[in-house]
Amino acid sequence: MAGLHVRSLLVTGANRGIGLGLVQHFLRMPNPPQWIFAGCRSPKGQRAGLHHGDAGSDLPCVGSAEVTNPASIKAAAAKVGEHLGGSGLNLLINNAGIIKPKTLDSETLEDMTEIYTTNTAGPLLMGQAFLPLLKKAAQGSPGSGLSCSKAAIINISSIGGSFSSFFTWDVIQATSYRCSKAALNMLSKCQSLAYREHGVLCVALHPGWVQTDMGSSPPVTVDDSVQGMLKVLSSLSEKETGTFLDWEGNVIPW
Amino acid sequence: MAGLHVRSLLVTGANRGIGLGLVQHFLRMPNPPQWIFAGCRSPKGQRAGLHHGDAGSDLPCVGSAEVTNPASIKAAAAKVGEHLGGSGLNLLINNAGIIKPKTLDSETLEDMTEIYTTNTAGPLLMGQAFLPLLKKAAQGSPGSGLSCSKAAIINISSIGGSFSSFFTWDVIQATSYRCSKAALNMLSKCQSLAYREHGVLCVALHPGWVQTDMGSSPPVTVDDSVQGMLKVLSSLSEKETGTFLDWEGNVIPW
Ligand SMILES: NC(=O)c1ccc[n+]([C@@H]2O[C@H](COP(=O)([O-])OP(=O)(O)OC[C@H]3O[C@@H](n4cnc5c(N)ncnc54)[C@H](OP(=O)(O)O)[C@@H]3O)[C@@H](O)[C@H]2O)c1
Ligand SMILES: NC(=O)c1ccc[n+]([C@@H]2O[C@H](COP(=O)([O-])OP(=O)(O)OC[C@H]3O[C@@H](n4cnc5c(N)ncnc54)[C@H](OP(=O)(O)O)[C@@H]3O)[C@@H](O)[C@H]2O)c1
Repeated sequence: MAGLHVRSLLVTGANRGIGLGLVQHFLRMPNPPQWIFAGCRSPKGQRAGLHHGDAGSDLPCVGSAEVTNPASIKAAAAKVGEHLGGSGLNLLINNAGIIKPKTLDSETLEDMTEIYTTNTAGPLLMGQAFLPLLKKAAQGSPGSGLSCSKAAIINISSIGGSFSSFFTWDVIQATSYRCSKAALNMLSKCQSLAYREHGVLCVALHPGWVQTDMGSSPPVTVDDSVQGMLKVLSSLSEKETGTFLDWEGNVIPW
Repeated sequence: MAGLHVRSLLVTGANRGIGLGLVQHFLRMPNPPQWIFAGCRSPKGQRAGLHHGDAGSDLPCVGSAEVTNPASIKAAAAKVGEHLGGSGLNLLINNAGIIKPKTLDSETLEDMTEIYTTNTAGPLLMGQAFLPLLKKAAQGSPGSGLSCSKAAIINISSIGGSFSSFFTWDVIQATSYRCSKAALNMLSKCQSLAYREHGVLCVALHPGWVQTDMGSSPPVTVDDSVQGMLKVLSSLSEKETGTFLDWEGNVIPW
């Protein structure tokens, strides 16, 4: 991870699955970040192997970081700001997400709304609330250009949100999920345009088909996915802001 | 419109703008459709120049076709089914839509939800509710293959939902709108895959930048947009199902 030197990061949905894997990998780095904020919406998160002070690191579970609740997000941003003292936040990883593997005909308005709120509106609200801290990190970092070591928003998207990827259609339609991730990709593009002037890099990242509660016997382990993604993050520059990449660094067509 | 022969169609948001223009063009055809259903969510629609029996045509304003309300949609589908007797519905044009021209930083959860519900979930629910009538139209039409004269869902999208079109970004960010239209494009693709076996063609269609309440001094008149779109509809076959086109027939990149 030669190219990735972050002092602080926040991962949403960090109590299990890919989010937990990300936090654990950062903790295990030779020089772990000074502040790792593990966003968990329920106190159960604290039982999932995340302990305050793990690996010598300050690891607060950020209150009830429920990404569908603007008040909860604002409270989390305030709490993170307090922990950071005068420092900024280098990396915001919007990882929390849900899927309902329904057929098109069984989708409901409630599903559409819940999934969009979590997978798309959540990352928008998180970006807004943490922008001041991301800006601060960008301003406090040397050099011009964009990088994840400076300030970045990483939206964990899915290849299911790509218009070129329907090989899984016969197995899992999940229209509400696909729509939410296509919209998340659009959000990432919009964020990259709006936040570039603040020194914040923004990408959408597909983690692979990963062995978590969400995936159904997929091929990639959480460890491999996370290791791949961190390598990708370490390589990103202003050339990549506003793109859609996978855990192996391949560009995915929208 | 040599290639477009529909007996029945429904347009949502038909009381003004592009939706009204579409209905008026169908009414003025030499052989107008037997049933034109003008979806209006408020009774004001009936005062907008839409009269029952216009041009010898049966033109019911379909109750309160509020596309964010599943009960209202189901009631509209039942009412349309009654009017049609045993016949099917050839064309469902999901035109109703809203925009809020905000900057990324001023978007709210409420906007994100309202715009997605109208622009994306509405067309999903309309497609579900009218599928039985669309299937019936497909079954009752001669020949194999797909066409708008047989059975089709046309989702009025926007080039703002394309990942390749950000030339308007400095003028209008409208992230909530762009996200909803990218998601609508994804829905169109999903509908095309799910409904192909029922003989229903599905596309996303950009109407141009059109002079309506929504557009701010844009170049295309409602008349030109609608005429262009009807020409495009008349030319569609199974080759085009699941694509994203503009009012002049150009393929738009996702
Ligand atoms: N696994 C795959 O194959 C795969 C493929 C493509 C993309 N992805 C994406 O990767 C991300 C992580 O997925 P995963 O496989 O790790 O899923 P997972 O094991 O199901 O974990 C989902 C995480 O998101 C959290 N979460 C859900 N809704 C939330 C909300 N409203 N507020 C805060 N946290 C919330 C969950 O918290 P609780 O424990 O409280 O529910 C949990 O921590 C998702 O965005 C997913 O779409 C996964
Ligand atoms: N004009 C453009 O330049 C342009 C460009 C790209 C795409 N489009 C798309 O074209 C479509 C039509 O736009 P327009 O320019 O004709 O806009 P418009 O003049 O603002 O008309 C919008 C129509 O949608 C209806 N509507 C809104 N929300 C609704 C709901 N929840 N239920 C039922 N009807 C609803 C409105 O009804 P009320 O009168 O009751 O509000 C009205 O009839 C939209 O999907 C828009 O995104 C327009």
